[in-house]
Amino acid sequence: MNKDTQRAKAEAFRAMHDRKQVLVLVNAWDAGSARFIEDAGARAIASSSAGLAYSLGYSDGEYVPLDEFIGAIARIARVIKVPLSADIESGFGADEKGVGGTVRAIIEAGAVGINLEDSTGERERPLYDIESAVARVHAARAAGEALGVPLVINARSDALVTLKGERGAILDEAIKRCNAYRAAGADSLFPLGLEGEAEISRATREINGPVNLIFRPNIPPLARLQELGIARLSLGSAAALAALTLTHQIAQEMFGAGTYPSMLGRGINYVEANKIMQS
Amino acid sequence: MNKDTQRAKAEAFRAMHDRKQVLVLVNAWDAGSARFIEDAGARAIASSSAGLAYSLGYSDGEYVPLDEFIGAIARIARVIKVPLSADIESGFGADEKGVGGTVRAIIEAGAVGINLEDSTGERERPLYDIESAVARVHAARAAGEALGVPLVINARSDALVTLKGERGAILDEAIKRCNAYRAAGADSLFPLGLEGEAEISRATREINGPVNLIFRPNIPPLARLQELGIARLSLGSAAALAALTLTHQIAQEMFGAGTYPSMLGRGINYVEANKIMQS
Repeated sequence: MNKDTQRAKAEAFRAMHDRKQVLVLVNAWDAGSARFIEDAGARAIASSSAGLAYSLGYSDGEYVPLDEFIGAIARIARVIKVPLSADIESGFGADEKGVGGTVRAIIEAGAVGINLEDSTGERERPLYDIESAVARVHAARAAGEALGVPLVINARSDALVTLKGERGAILDEAIKRCNAYRAAGADSLFPLGLEGEAEISRATREINGPVNLIFRPNIPPLARLQELGIARLSLGSAAALAALTLTHQIAQEMFGAGTYPSMLGRGINYVEANKIMQS
Repeated sequence: MNKDTQRAKAEAFRAMHDRKQVLVLVNAWDAGSARFIEDAGARAIASSSAGLAYSLGYSDGEYVPLDEFIGAIARIARVIKVPLSADIESGFGADEKGVGGTVRAIIEAGAVGINLEDSTGERERPLYDIESAVARVHAARAAGEALGVPLVINARSDALVTLKGERGAILDEAIKRCNAYRAAGADSLFPLGLEGEAEISRATREINGPVNLIFRPNIPPLARLQELGIARLSLGSAAALAALTLTHQIAQEMFGAGTYPSMLGRGINYVEANKIMQS
């Protein structure tokens, strides 16, 4: 991608976190879903790590070989005009150098934003200690600067979904981590696992930057999230899981009852789909 | 893939065309959809050329670069246990040599069957003349034999959807072509565009081999297709289009009304999806 275009997309994406209107991200999992979501009016596209892993034949959790992951991100970037943010999970790297390398490759593939989480994937020690996690955010920021792209970093803390103990203390830890990541150069902060309005409200009050929330069926309505100060709402894997659930249901009906599922042949048709992919 | 395993899969897939029970194929477009369709009880998986093209960021019609196409087929083959048939459209090759090379690559990627159509993609001369089309079926058969895999060839004639003139004469041409492809080594025959029971019945009576029908909302029920002698029913791009339509609807509702689509968070969940991908 042309560097000026990519820089402009990064700045446009950063400006969408201004809390004037919640930035809604319907996460895509391949080039087709990204293009269809863009066609439906997306301001930006974010990838779903789980959805993308499923599409490539893996379960979620950095099982996708990095070159296959980068290839998928490049295919998405090629077909959309709006900014693209890639969920790189914990950065596909054991240390900061690894994270930096992943981020360079992601930017070269055309992305202008990332999700970076502080999970280690290890049961004994589920989170990077805060100094290591901060160093990883620094490494991502430095990789963007080295390439001349003002990368938009959404730093996620998994404290609420991995640590055990008194809930208030764990929320304190999540907020502390988000603020440390913000100081290290993150643009938005994503304390995964917020439950209910009181926790959402504490997070938006005490975190020194735009806050990302993930969709769950029981979250407050979008207008209320706006009042609570949420900057960005992402669907995570929800759209990918809905599409795969529908596929599973179609297959079960065809193989089981042997009747024709009612949703077949009634939506966007072949000619329309080709037009969406061509534009 | 181990050659003995691949040979056994090819023979098993061929045996499914015995007309004792209509072979129902819910066409997949990536490794995730293939694994989910297999989990729902598929006897075999066929790829949708359109669905796969959309997933990779292209419109249908051999716009996908061949290496990207082969990569996608290999990813599907890696995650399923049942036989895989790849829709290679007109063979990604201007001549028989090109078709042979595509088929070799597809078999090396793990497929045991193909769809091969007689469309040229050219407006002036929409179909290969019958001698060329027969030579292309021969080339596919020879490529399988060279690799020691008894490839299952579903030869499609597009006569009914491209030729103009008296309907009966065009159906004659479609049937003549299918019988020529059968004599050239095709295992099943696919006269695209059959309309109504009378045409389906003529096709199954006059074609000297198993007949493939594609789903349309107005086709007879599955039990009736069985009576009419259909060997195989494929969904083509219908499941992919249903999944993309759902994705488009989810995105439109989120960006438009700003309400949460009812299908989100209610189907197969993240933990279950990871299990399906791991098994």
